[in-house]
Amino acid sequence: MKQVAATPRIIGRRLYASFTVAPKLALSDLNRSTIEAKYAVRGKIPIRADELSQEIAQNEKLAFNEIISANIGNPQQLDQAPLSWYRQTLSLLQYPGLIEQLKELDETTRNKLYPADVIERASTLLGSLGSVGAYSLSQGDRFVRKSVAEFISKRDGYPANPNDIFLTGGASAAVLYLIQVLSRGENLGFLIPIPQYPLYTASIALNNATPIGYYLDEANDWSTDPKQIRQLIAENKDKGIDVKSLVIINPGNPTGAILSESDISQLIDIAAEHGLVVIADEVYQENVFHGQFVSAKKVLAKLLEKDPETYKNVQLVSLHSTSKGVSGECGQRGGYMELVGFSKEVQDVIFKLASINLCPVVTGQALVELMINPPKEGTPSHGLYQKEVSSIHEALEERATRLHEAFSKMADVECNKPQGAMYLFPRLNFDKSLYAKLHEACKADGLSVDEFYCSDLLENTGICCVPGSGFGQVPGTYHLRTTFLPPGTNWIERWELFHKNFVAKYKN
Amino acid sequence: MKQVAATPRIIGRRLYASFTVAPKLALSDLNRSTIEAKYAVRGKIPIRADELSQEIAQNEKLAFNEIISANIGNPQQLDQAPLSWYRQTLSLLQYPGLIEQLKELDETTRNKLYPADVIERASTLLGSLGSVGAYSLSQGDRFVRKSVAEFISKRDGYPANPNDIFLTGGASAAVLYLIQVLSRGENLGFLIPIPQYPLYTASIALNNATPIGYYLDEANDWSTDPKQIRQLIAENKDKGIDVKSLVIINPGNPTGAILSESDISQLIDIAAEHGLVVIADEVYQENVFHGQFVSAKKVLAKLLEKDPETYKNVQLVSLHSTSKGVSGECGQRGGYMELVGFSKEVQDVIFKLASINLCPVVTGQALVELMINPPKEGTPSHGLYQKEVSSIHEALEERATRLHEAFSKMADVECNKPQGAMYLFPRLNFDKSLYAKLHEACKADGLSVDEFYCSDLLENTGICCVPGSGFGQVPGTYHLRTTFLPPGTNWIERWELFHKNFVAKYKN
Repeated sequence: MKQVAATPRIIGRRLYASFTVAPKLALSDLNRSTIEAKYAVRGKIPIRADELSQEIAQNEKLAFNEIISANIGNPQQLDQAPLSWYRQTLSLLQYPGLIEQLKELDETTRNKLYPADVIERASTLLGSLGSVGAYSLSQGDRFVRKSVAEFISKRDGYPANPNDIFLTGGASAAVLYLIQVLSRGENLGFLIPIPQYPLYTASIALNNATPIGYYLDEANDWSTDPKQIRQLIAENKDKGIDVKSLVIINPGNPTGAILSESDISQLIDIAAEHGLVVIADEVYQENVFHGQFVSAKKVLAKLLEKDPETYKNVQLVSLHSTSKGVSGECGQRGGYMELVGFSKEVQDVIFKLASINLCPVVTGQALVELMINPPKEGTPSHGLYQKEVSSIHEALEERATRLHEAFSKMADVECNKPQGAMYLFPRLNFDKSLYAKLHEACKADGLSVDEFYCSDLLENTGICCVPGSGFGQVPGTYHLRTTFLPPGTNWIERWELFHKNFVAKYKN
Repeated sequence: MKQVAATPRIIGRRLYASFTVAPKLALSDLNRSTIEAKYAVRGKIPIRADELSQEIAQNEKLAFNEIISANIGNPQQLDQAPLSWYRQTLSLLQYPGLIEQLKELDETTRNKLYPADVIERASTLLGSLGSVGAYSLSQGDRFVRKSVAEFISKRDGYPANPNDIFLTGGASAAVLYLIQVLSRGENLGFLIPIPQYPLYTASIALNNATPIGYYLDEANDWSTDPKQIRQLIAENKDKGIDVKSLVIINPGNPTGAILSESDISQLIDIAAEHGLVVIADEVYQENVFHGQFVSAKKVLAKLLEKDPETYKNVQLVSLHSTSKGVSGECGQRGGYMELVGFSKEVQDVIFKLASINLCPVVTGQALVELMINPPKEGTPSHGLYQKEVSSIHEALEERATRLHEAFSKMADVECNKPQGAMYLFPRLNFDKSLYAKLHEACKADGLSVDEFYCSDLLENTGICCVPGSGFGQVPGTYHLRTTFLPPGTNWIERWELFHKNFVAKYKN
């Protein structure tokens, strides 16, 4: 610390002749857990991609003229158009004065600008929200929560209670609340799938709890193995770690796998026996190509119906979001969580956390309602809504198939067939025996094989995806996660060519 | 734990004959800090107010027929209308298709629906955002950050850098990031004003750090005493507590006081000497009736200009929000923070936290731009904008004055004249010598005097405000915080009557 003789100054009524100037904050002054938390989806490679996109914007000559952001499920950044039903209604919520002004237009002009059911729904929502510029209840607007409860009841065939619904700023906010509330210290363990969505490891790290990874079985379509989970609980108990939560991501991110009803039953059995809170991340429930999505809530409700004594204490949180599915409204930050089976005192703590955050953005709350209660048959908006939804579904499935085919043909790459979600998680079979040169190059750069590949892919093609190490993988295996959202096939062709050259360069 | 013989069931390929059903989570299973955090603004009294408002909705007979929500600065929940400029532009951002459709209308109809500069600004914003349904950069949209930097430069006469601006979901999100990053354990102290906005104590509690309250001087218009702050730093150092941050709220919440330039200079001196990060909560910078708001950034920039060696290491974060001022768009969750003087490595950690939260709601980001870059003179929207802004300013000042007058006349109540913000923080001079019966009644109910008063006020009049204990106060003194936002004077008359009866009942 350098002694600085500050110019003598009279400030107010006081005079300080000189003082030692303190240094700036160093990393060692910060909360260690915030330094240790990692979040690869927006990590080193995406940050580099952003730099490259700035260079392109400044007309610098690169080997490509656009960045393909395949690192994050952000449909509207690419070419997915928002659903007209959502946006028309939200525009009226933002500007209710327009509803009055529309009344003054002739019917043809008005109907062309806004279908009658849009005006009606906007009015209903405004009736409950008042203004989208006012704070709502911290738990979320009552009308929207009631609507969500009806949606769940209809989806599952079992009742849901609006008082157990919390509207949240995307599902991420819900995950952050839950993990914060449940993190009772370093000896508190969360079971999370490996590979996982890194929001889980990041929030566990931020809260100084312990992540306990259970491996999904790549050879069996990334299925879940209850036996392994039971083993992990026992092993960790022996080490003094109290396992209190089980995260399941269904449909899987990054795997795209879908859990069967019997898989979920077995996980709930474990929860009943070991007192685990089941956190069911179901944000991709609308993104299903093969198989059938069954909610954890439905499976639990069925079990409770048959055998209430066994399952009465099971606590489940299920998460949904307006960011994924055919909605893809990531920037609007809408979502909800349903709490099932929690005691009032625990639920009150979650409520308090929501209060400290004031309220989720109110337009996002409205969007949740529009998502789970879309136009019904016979209403003016229904036809366009159906058409837009089908076309998004078809486009996603087509892109998934096309990209999966590309990976299937690439040398030394394996990729499970996608069942749902927005991602593929291909495996790069670049082991040392076949790719000695590659492993040497990685060692020289201080990168893992998957990091090296993704970085090289970005620098050569502009395609940005995320190394498997960001999600977790069996040691010695290498993967990457890519969305299949980018439009067109040009980028896939670029990738195929890159891969060919990469293999040619590094294979023994 | 009760042993339950579960019905033998075959699930998948496994058979569990019976297991012990684990109990539900108890409070003792939760993160202790989430249990201990308190947030009075949405605490016990507001929760009771919500119950009462449900009773009113169900036509139950109460002594009043509406709840006056004076507990929270939520202008649009009451009768403040949003600014047309904001809402018209936001409606086009939500529904860009309307821009095309408007072009097909005749000019008179179009201009009546949307002024030309609204259409223009919406198009400009869309040019940068793409879609409000896409995730933006985690730090916030580039165009909006550039605009914010220009606003700050113009406001202060000193430059600001877009790379140092983080757009946030209201100022609360910024506070939560900062306190999380800076909380290096129990021995890490944050200097906070007393009374304070309880978000600070809540987030410090959530992060297991230590709040160190410095008292504002009620007898001198709630001014700040640098001598006391220096003493607290020394005392805490002796106790092994490392004081690393100084929170200032200017204009004050709940006090309504405004800091002078020389007050701020003295606080920055302390920061330079002790290496404190100054967190300047300036969300009420537009709510000023008396005196002049000077930003901490401006004061620091001036000091740096005169004496760079002394101030070069000072680190300042200043916060602003779209929720307050004449905007009052609480539910839209817009805000920003400017980081000044931080090292790149520390700024990167803050960036990573923002990444884990993906991005602030994109419409909120756009709203920040609309707030800090309003219609210029000569544009079609300028006249209406000016008119609406003035009328909100006048209404707020009028209400503040009217409520202040009411408190001035109440027996055994003292209240400083409001200078800014949205609150009054009157003192209830109900000490034991004069109000023995009251103190007995409080003891019987297990409430502090201010809690008792606020609870009684709510049950008798429907007026919901927050006991001073939620903000902190000199021990033995009692206050309450009320907004002056509710319209009309009926509620003030009800309060006056209630107070008269209260004093009659409890005064010796």
